Amino acid sequence: MGATVSLTLGELAVRFGCELRGDPDTRIERVATLAGASPGSLSFLANPHYRGQLPATRASAVVLTREAAGDCPAAALVCANPYATYARIAALLHPPAPLVPGVHPRAVVAAGARIDPSAEIAPLAVIAEGASVAARCFIGPHCVLAPGVKVAEDVRLVARVTLGPGVQLGARSIVQPGAVIGGDGFGFAPESGTWLKVPQVGSVRVGADVEIGANTTIDRGAIDDTVIEEGVKLDNLIQIAHNVHIGAHTAVAANVGISGSVTIGKRCMIGGGAGFAGHLKVADDVVITGYAMVTRSIERAGVYSSAFPCEEAHAWWRLIAHFKRLGTLEGRVRRIERAAGVRAGQRQSDE
Amino acid sequence: MGATVSLTLGELAVRFGCELRGDPDTRIERVATLAGASPGSLSFLANPHYRGQLPATRASAVVLTREAAGDCPAAALVCANPYATYARIAALLHPPAPLVPGVHPRAVVAAGARIDPSAEIAPLAVIAEGASVAARCFIGPHCVLAPGVKVAEDVRLVARVTLGPGVQLGARSIVQPGAVIGGDGFGFAPESGTWLKVPQVGSVRVGADVEIGANTTIDRGAIDDTVIEEGVKLDNLIQIAHNVHIGAHTAVAANVGISGSVTIGKRCMIGGGAGFAGHLKVADDVVITGYAMVTRSIERAGVYSSAFPCEEAHAWWRLIAHFKRLGTLEGRVRRIERAAGVRAGQRQSDE
Amino acid sequence: MGATVSLTLGELAVRFGCELRGDPDTRIERVATLAGASPGSLSFLANPHYRGQLPATRASAVVLTREAAGDCPAAALVCANPYATYARIAALLHPPAPLVPGVHPRAVVAAGARIDPSAEIAPLAVIAEGASVAARCFIGPHCVLAPGVKVAEDVRLVARVTLGPGVQLGARSIVQPGAVIGGDGFGFAPESGTWLKVPQVGSVRVGADVEIGANTTIDRGAIDDTVIEEGVKLDNLIQIAHNVHIGAHTAVAANVGISGSVTIGKRCMIGGGAGFAGHLKVADDVVITGYAMVTRSIERAGVYSSAFPCEEAHAWWRLIAHFKRLGTLEGRVRRIERAAGVRAGQRQSDE
Repeated sequence: MGATVSLTLGELAVRFGCELRGDPDTRIERVATLAGASPGSLSFLANPHYRGQLPATRASAVVLTREAAGDCPAAALVCANPYATYARIAALLHPPAPLVPGVHPRAVVAAGARIDPSAEIAPLAVIAEGASVAARCFIGPHCVLAPGVKVAEDVRLVARVTLGPGVQLGARSIVQPGAVIGGDGFGFAPESGTWLKVPQVGSVRVGADVEIGANTTIDRGAIDDTVIEEGVKLDNLIQIAHNVHIGAHTAVAANVGISGSVTIGKRCMIGGGAGFAGHLKVADDVVITGYAMVTRSIERAGVYSSAFPCEEAHAWWRLIAHFKRLGTLEGRVRRIERAAGVRAGQRQSDE
Repeated sequence: MGATVSLTLGELAVRFGCELRGDPDTRIERVATLAGASPGSLSFLANPHYRGQLPATRASAVVLTREAAGDCPAAALVCANPYATYARIAALLHPPAPLVPGVHPRAVVAAGARIDPSAEIAPLAVIAEGASVAARCFIGPHCVLAPGVKVAEDVRLVARVTLGPGVQLGARSIVQPGAVIGGDGFGFAPESGTWLKVPQVGSVRVGADVEIGANTTIDRGAIDDTVIEEGVKLDNLIQIAHNVHIGAHTAVAANVGISGSVTIGKRCMIGGGAGFAGHLKVADDVVITGYAMVTRSIERAGVYSSAFPCEEAHAWWRLIAHFKRLGTLEGRVRRIERAAGVRAGQRQSDE
Repeated sequence: MGATVSLTLGELAVRFGCELRGDPDTRIERVATLAGASPGSLSFLANPHYRGQLPATRASAVVLTREAAGDCPAAALVCANPYATYARIAALLHPPAPLVPGVHPRAVVAAGARIDPSAEIAPLAVIAEGASVAARCFIGPHCVLAPGVKVAEDVRLVARVTLGPGVQLGARSIVQPGAVIGGDGFGFAPESGTWLKVPQVGSVRVGADVEIGANTTIDRGAIDDTVIEEGVKLDNLIQIAHNVHIGAHTAVAANVGISGSVTIGKRCMIGGGAGFAGHLKVADDVVITGYAMVTRSIERAGVYSSAFPCEEAHAWWRLIAHFKRLGTLEGRVRRIERAAGVRAGQRQSDE
């Protein structure tokens, strides 16, 4: 939110290297969807799903590719990657609220914490001894920074973020409300039918330009650190167990669970609700589709799946019944083959 | 919790339109389960699962249907919908703690926030400029209301609820602790192997009589708002992505994930752990059973499923092995058909 | 974290009943992984997965079994349960920060709350009337204790933990940040197409030596209490609905959802992402593997599964297509049997 600004299409075209088809003096004041736009607003077309909305849009300008520009009823900002260009224009039109440098009198900051004077510490944040907050950070209300936390330049903790002992956050990272980074990992040694807590003495290192979603949890390492490399994007309600290592620029959708000591490569994309068993490795450039379960290491880039799309319930339960009879069905086929003298053929090679 | 009150069965029967079988002067002081009841308590029978517990209950009265009343060893409050009648009586016997109007001196309320004098603002709540809180609201400890938030009459934020910029909550809505409404949506544009943040400039509009569970997250819209219509009930740990629209009186169980721009109809019921791929539409009156994955739009009311009930592991892994041989098995059947001169018959129409 | 201490191998061997192979005067200052160890550190070998790292370790000592000790290039602390022994040594080397008894002036503690003088109440904790905190507890920053909460000796609420009305926590329990214990259960009575809230008047009773993970939610009971018995370990982002009962020493991994009124036995192990339908019972000593869905009661100890490991997507979608044709395939087999005069044989008994 924050105050909005107004720019001309000419300025935008020059600044973002777009080809402008339309009047360079047209003023843009806000962004809008194709369907919801009104004069003064700028829209974009990136997902072909929405192409049908282009001809009727009331936007003053649309960011789109050359291919789509012919159907555009308004001014067009033509470029190769409309979504990225839209993102840059939207950031310009809707800048974040400016920082109010300094520590709010209702924050609780230990005498030994180092707070850069250009940072803003909101009311009711709690910052412990030995924590440090670098230039231009925003530490929102109700955040907790435990001893030894290090927050690099331009980090934004929106509100109510908990950073455990020794957690490090890289520059420009953004953490949404409710995230817990550096809670104890789930480490217990079985002994005589009970569980003995294994002290979790590692921490969490998060690289630059990482985003961490609301109520996501990243556990501190058991001994060594849990590591999130630069540019990783984590959605809401994700669980990342101790000693996980996520490679640079990997994106993880909501509700994913990653078990202890899993290593995920760079530039992977993990769909919502997917799960990873412990101690496995996933190569770079792997795509895991939603709700898939990864139980073995994946050594080659590619797309991997294991979920079933839903069906009407009566059809589904019939399929389940067939599934449970699969052993019987194989036996019946085997008996027919014997009776009819048909050989199983390429069966070995198929498997 | 709060103070309890005492009522006679006669009063209850009149107030809630029940047929009373028993002494109207019997006093009821609390509610109890059939199995755990003692004299002075009122129980109910709605789920047939618990019918076996009726004959031995020690409750002073039981709310139930005419059909079940014959087996009741205590006074009976007979009605058509015992669970709803029980709910109303329980609310009367266990009223919430009365509000203490005013702003606690340890809350942090901006000068420009509008707080109705009948509302209670608990200690350590943070309310920003331009936020407004209507009559008789309870804003619990550690809640954060960002700029522009609008909370309607009689809303109850139990504790530690975060409302992002511009979020609107309808009258009588209840939000459990840890919920985050209005965090940034997961919007990133791919560019040269990295992700560029797309500003999330929409907000969240929540209708009247909505309940939102503990640690549930509802993201603000990318451009337009995310919308939760009136009467929707959301359980704990649910993820609702940007620009989702949930129709009135739909109930969603815990651990569900709903991807961006999904539209769900009115009066749907979504089972625990279910997941929705993005940009799809679900009709009114649809039931999705637990752990189902919805990957396409659903255009007709009905029940939809896609999860497998668990089996003993050795049986399960045998089934998985059969499943992975399905291509081979079809090939074997095809070869037998050819060898035996049997035609595949209705195969086309079955599929 | 906290200050570390230094101990000799001789002291450790005596204290923990290990056979020492090496110099008893060697000093140990910290723990380390086999791969990351340097002189002065102690490591351990429990998971055979890491056995290959043993010969090259630079640790000063390794805790391991007699079987593995032959390959150890450093001093060896030989014992039957190396992981448990390691846990005890790590706790000695990395003790928690000592308590600072007393109520921080920036905490908000009601006049009628009882706080043992040996407990530490951190800044911005909120403790309501009628709550009690026993000896040597740590109540971290931003915790909320509602009226009637009872916290037993040596409990540690790390930070930002919410305990609802009447919640009881047993001695030595540990709760990670963001957990919500005692939010309202998801209880709504259907009535004329809308949902009527059913007051949730029970609470949550948690036994001794329980650990509860970050952002996990445990709902208060509808009438009777939700119960977590002693020694239970709950990972992050778990949902436990109203009136669930979890038996002693059961461990539950992250992202699990347990529906209302489920009873789980003692010493069970529940894998990540598993789900339980409501009102069912699970026996003692049951193992549910990751992502399994439990839809019926389980009456015998054993291992239960229902998830599919992922495949490359094109192979997966071919399997799904075969799966959807299972009814057709069975029909084809039936027609061949008829044509060839082969009887379905043991089909009945197989099923």
